[in-house]
Amino acid sequence: MLTRRTDLAVEAEELWRESAGETTELRGVRARERAVNGFQVTTVDILDGEGAAALGKPVGSYTTVEIDKLLHREDDAFTVGARVLADELSALLDLRPEETVLVAGLGNRAITADAVGPATVGSTMVTSHLVERMPDMFGSLRRVVALETGVLGTTGIESAEVIRAITDRVKPDRVIVVDALAARRLARVCRTVQLADTGIVPGSGVGNARAAINRETLGIPVIAVGVPTVVDAATLAADIAAETGASAELLTDEFLGAGMVVTPKDIDANVADIAKLVAYGINLALHPELTIDDVTMFVS
Amino acid sequence: MLTRRTDLAVEAEELWRESAGETTELRGVRARERAVNGFQVTTVDILDGEGAAALGKPVGSYTTVEIDKLLHREDDAFTVGARVLADELSALLDLRPEETVLVAGLGNRAITADAVGPATVGSTMVTSHLVERMPDMFGSLRRVVALETGVLGTTGIESAEVIRAITDRVKPDRVIVVDALAARRLARVCRTVQLADTGIVPGSGVGNARAAINRETLGIPVIAVGVPTVVDAATLAADIAAETGASAELLTDEFLGAGMVVTPKDIDANVADIAKLVAYGINLALHPELTIDDVTMFVS
Amino acid sequence: MLTRRTDLAVEAEELWRESAGETTELRGVRARERAVNGFQVTTVDILDGEGAAALGKPVGSYTTVEIDKLLHREDDAFTVGARVLADELSALLDLRPEETVLVAGLGNRAITADAVGPATVGSTMVTSHLVERMPDMFGSLRRVVALETGVLGTTGIESAEVIRAITDRVKPDRVIVVDALAARRLARVCRTVQLADTGIVPGSGVGNARAAINRETLGIPVIAVGVPTVVDAATLAADIAAETGASAELLTDEFLGAGMVVTPKDIDANVADIAKLVAYGINLALHPELTIDDVTMFVS
Amino acid sequence: MLTRRTDLAVEAEELWRESAGETTELRGVRARERAVNGFQVTTVDILDGEGAAALGKPVGSYTTVEIDKLLHREDDAFTVGARVLADELSALLDLRPEETVLVAGLGNRAITADAVGPATVGSTMVTSHLVERMPDMFGSLRRVVALETGVLGTTGIESAEVIRAITDRVKPDRVIVVDALAARRLARVCRTVQLADTGIVPGSGVGNARAAINRETLGIPVIAVGVPTVVDAATLAADIAAETGASAELLTDEFLGAGMVVTPKDIDANVADIAKLVAYGINLALHPELTIDDVTMFVS
Repeated sequence: MLTRRTDLAVEAEELWRESAGETTELRGVRARERAVNGFQVTTVDILDGEGAAALGKPVGSYTTVEIDKLLHREDDAFTVGARVLADELSALLDLRPEETVLVAGLGNRAITADAVGPATVGSTMVTSHLVERMPDMFGSLRRVVALETGVLGTTGIESAEVIRAITDRVKPDRVIVVDALAARRLARVCRTVQLADTGIVPGSGVGNARAAINRETLGIPVIAVGVPTVVDAATLAADIAAETGASAELLTDEFLGAGMVVTPKDIDANVADIAKLVAYGINLALHPELTIDDVTMFVS
Repeated sequence: MLTRRTDLAVEAEELWRESAGETTELRGVRARERAVNGFQVTTVDILDGEGAAALGKPVGSYTTVEIDKLLHREDDAFTVGARVLADELSALLDLRPEETVLVAGLGNRAITADAVGPATVGSTMVTSHLVERMPDMFGSLRRVVALETGVLGTTGIESAEVIRAITDRVKPDRVIVVDALAARRLARVCRTVQLADTGIVPGSGVGNARAAINRETLGIPVIAVGVPTVVDAATLAADIAAETGASAELLTDEFLGAGMVVTPKDIDANVADIAKLVAYGINLALHPELTIDDVTMFVS
Repeated sequence: MLTRRTDLAVEAEELWRESAGETTELRGVRARERAVNGFQVTTVDILDGEGAAALGKPVGSYTTVEIDKLLHREDDAFTVGARVLADELSALLDLRPEETVLVAGLGNRAITADAVGPATVGSTMVTSHLVERMPDMFGSLRRVVALETGVLGTTGIESAEVIRAITDRVKPDRVIVVDALAARRLARVCRTVQLADTGIVPGSGVGNARAAINRETLGIPVIAVGVPTVVDAATLAADIAAETGASAELLTDEFLGAGMVVTPKDIDANVADIAKLVAYGINLALHPELTIDDVTMFVS
Repeated sequence: MLTRRTDLAVEAEELWRESAGETTELRGVRARERAVNGFQVTTVDILDGEGAAALGKPVGSYTTVEIDKLLHREDDAFTVGARVLADELSALLDLRPEETVLVAGLGNRAITADAVGPATVGSTMVTSHLVERMPDMFGSLRRVVALETGVLGTTGIESAEVIRAITDRVKPDRVIVVDALAARRLARVCRTVQLADTGIVPGSGVGNARAAINRETLGIPVIAVGVPTVVDAATLAADIAAETGASAELLTDEFLGAGMVVTPKDIDANVADIAKLVAYGINLALHPELTIDDVTMFVS
């Protein structure tokens, strides 16, 4: 049977419910929905090993913010959305004023669907050198450093290794990793941001432990910010097979082969817009005293 | 019933055969396949109105070159492939030495899946001004001009109008229009180049006549070079529905909605590679006395 | 003697005064300075043939807005500066509500110092197709089309020819051409925008008449918006020679050779910032009923 | 008195000779010139502390390859030039087959004049992950990793710190750092590549020791590859002042102010071309068994 791939906890929970049936209780997981200033926010908490095994994700808190308002270009959607992201991030980061942060952009800037991380770093307020060298002017800001990790294919080094190397030397108090994700449902592609306090464990925690970017490997809390930009063709095939009774093999052989993804046609603009939103959310979370206009003045 | 969208004549013929059944004769259409230096080449000739109605495309000759060898990075695939394209193009262009050519790149350079046209223009040998101003050095070259038309959303002007404006003033003898296409089958996406002597008639010849880019609207022969970069989600849904008996409505509602496309994950690199191949094919067709190395020296 | 190159009328006037001496009267030219909302604005009117011969520029009105406030990142410098540009442009355009405009970006987007025109077009509000197809929603907007002309080296066609071709077909009431300029003084590079009602006459009106983009060649008023991004090395050499008594030949032979320019090290960011300012100035001039936020919502 | 800035040892030696006069002997420095396959190659060896003090650069070997043939687009200039660079690099690297290398691209990819390092990394053959994971296919290649360090302004971390962090973890046997330089003479801008076995010591060894990237700070040999892309305006002013007797203060005040550089107008294309040449030189030095075509197949 084909595996459906999703990097979203909220979808992993849906998948579990579909396979287990309505009457079975999902133990070790707690989910709740809220509306925050018009934005739909869902939190899935994986409470213990039982929940982790059921959803195939590490214990921790996963919050999904739906940002479809942004895409409809409603008037103050960007401003309000950035603040909603900032508030959710702040809760996960739990920072004291003097604590410092590394923002790491994962992914390949030369592949649009994978460029959310690098693009976010491009709009992140980097302050560490300013605080150190111009304390009179910038001394009140939190110290932030930022880095694109590159990808294994272009650096020869695992992203996790790059981040470990930097954290060993720079010694931040928190890491925020930003990455592109795969969703199961097209309705969530470029319409959702997931924030998690678990860091990133490629392959859902199985195998390659060196590739994990989390508190275990880095020794400090790691907040993951993920944006789904594609649905894998194989996942779509599995879902269509399950829903229609069609053969999954036939679907992947003929229609939805390996290396293919489903994505919005204008993904280029979507990725640019969302990376800016995520960066502003991060900037406002790390510098709560600033306004959106302050951030714009700083990063542009 | 959902319409399957394909810009490839070879797929339009497949679709006709599927719906008409094996025993019905497709009149007004002639297809033949060849292998040219290891590349699979298929030509579909639409001979008359009956064939045009059956395939939903104008009367003319459509040649498809399969370029999957290029993607496997076989040793001389680029060199041989560019020559194969050049030979097929030469046959369609049927140029005398002194005749001049406009190469027009259609599409939006800011959307990867739509950037084949602009990227091809970027590697096209533009010679007109050199022939005119430095005849001693460049006088033996054919006069070629090139233009990105932009897209309606960023110029406010139909691409066809831009090309008509330029041809009215520059008065070339032929136009080559390069554009990204939608295929029906993923196996053809980024693996195929279609050459047609029909120009481009958006919407398969129905409606908006002002948008056509062909001999009728421009008064000179128009050769279209197209590269499929996506499959429309709706087309895929229709095909899956037909093959599996699933409801097409369910498929589009739940899995393959409007505005979505299926595409290779590394489409960015694919588009760059194929645009370069197409440009070299055009350059060698227009300047048959040059070698690949000559072209490289000129365009890079 | 070396010629000092400047595309700015305000500098041409300075040059004339330097060579003619304080006591000679510059006839046929009128200059005046104003401060508008904190921005320094200088207008040089060339009134007749005598003035044109003296300054080497066509008869017409040239207004220079100093935008150094923008670079100091003062709080509302962008907003106020865009309005100042818009007001000056409006006066030159003298448009009735139903009149339509072509915005043409000249220059080479692949050369940073020459990319102001293309970058400006990228932030221009293009409305013509929307007004036509969705009149209920956009019918109140002025019809605007926009185009990058490319450069002779990459299209084989003079920019002036491209614009004539488009205006012949699209028939706008005004053309705004945006281009990068060369200044004489580094203090004006990336710190100044020049608006002129003369269009563009390459080579100061001598020779190549086909290359002019003005009311004579197009039949409609042409407003030129220019941004100096470099000082030519030869111009700098001539000025240093004149000021210091050094040999201009020695300076150009040893220090300031052909093909070299003097430019800010961070010209990439400067060009992006100024192109956005110019585009907003154009957008507000063409759609005076809109706010800065309206424009942002439309173009980003 | 103004300091003339040059990052080229061959120019530092010229400066010394100019100030010391022809008759004084430059002790601790040895210079020699050769022609290698038509390329001019100059090596300046700084032999001891006396030589280092005289030239303001660390003890070590500095080799300059003149690449103006490349810019004239002579037929096999790229191929021959890449081999010449490779041979000079090989001599400095002195590698055993099993030794591994980190290629680090310094500089800001968003500033054209500073983008040589990042652009070079983009064409570097990265092999480490392939050798490890597909030893049957790639086991014969040297292990190479590569990284863009970013710049302090966008990461908040010194480039030297990034490299130390990575070398501490990845433990390569050599580091190659690629960076843009400032030359004293325009004739060397974009016409020269300097290879040095000294690594990089910002500010000529004075102050900020943390910023050095050399054997002392990293514990392994560091080869620096530098490409001059600009002349600082202040350096040019000092040279013009010295040559002409003009006041250096007047020159900097009026003509050649801070933050300005002199550079070729088409620096964008120059930087792209030279970065490719440097990358090929590095690739051939690290994988001497490969041909230019092998490298092209790998990196494009």
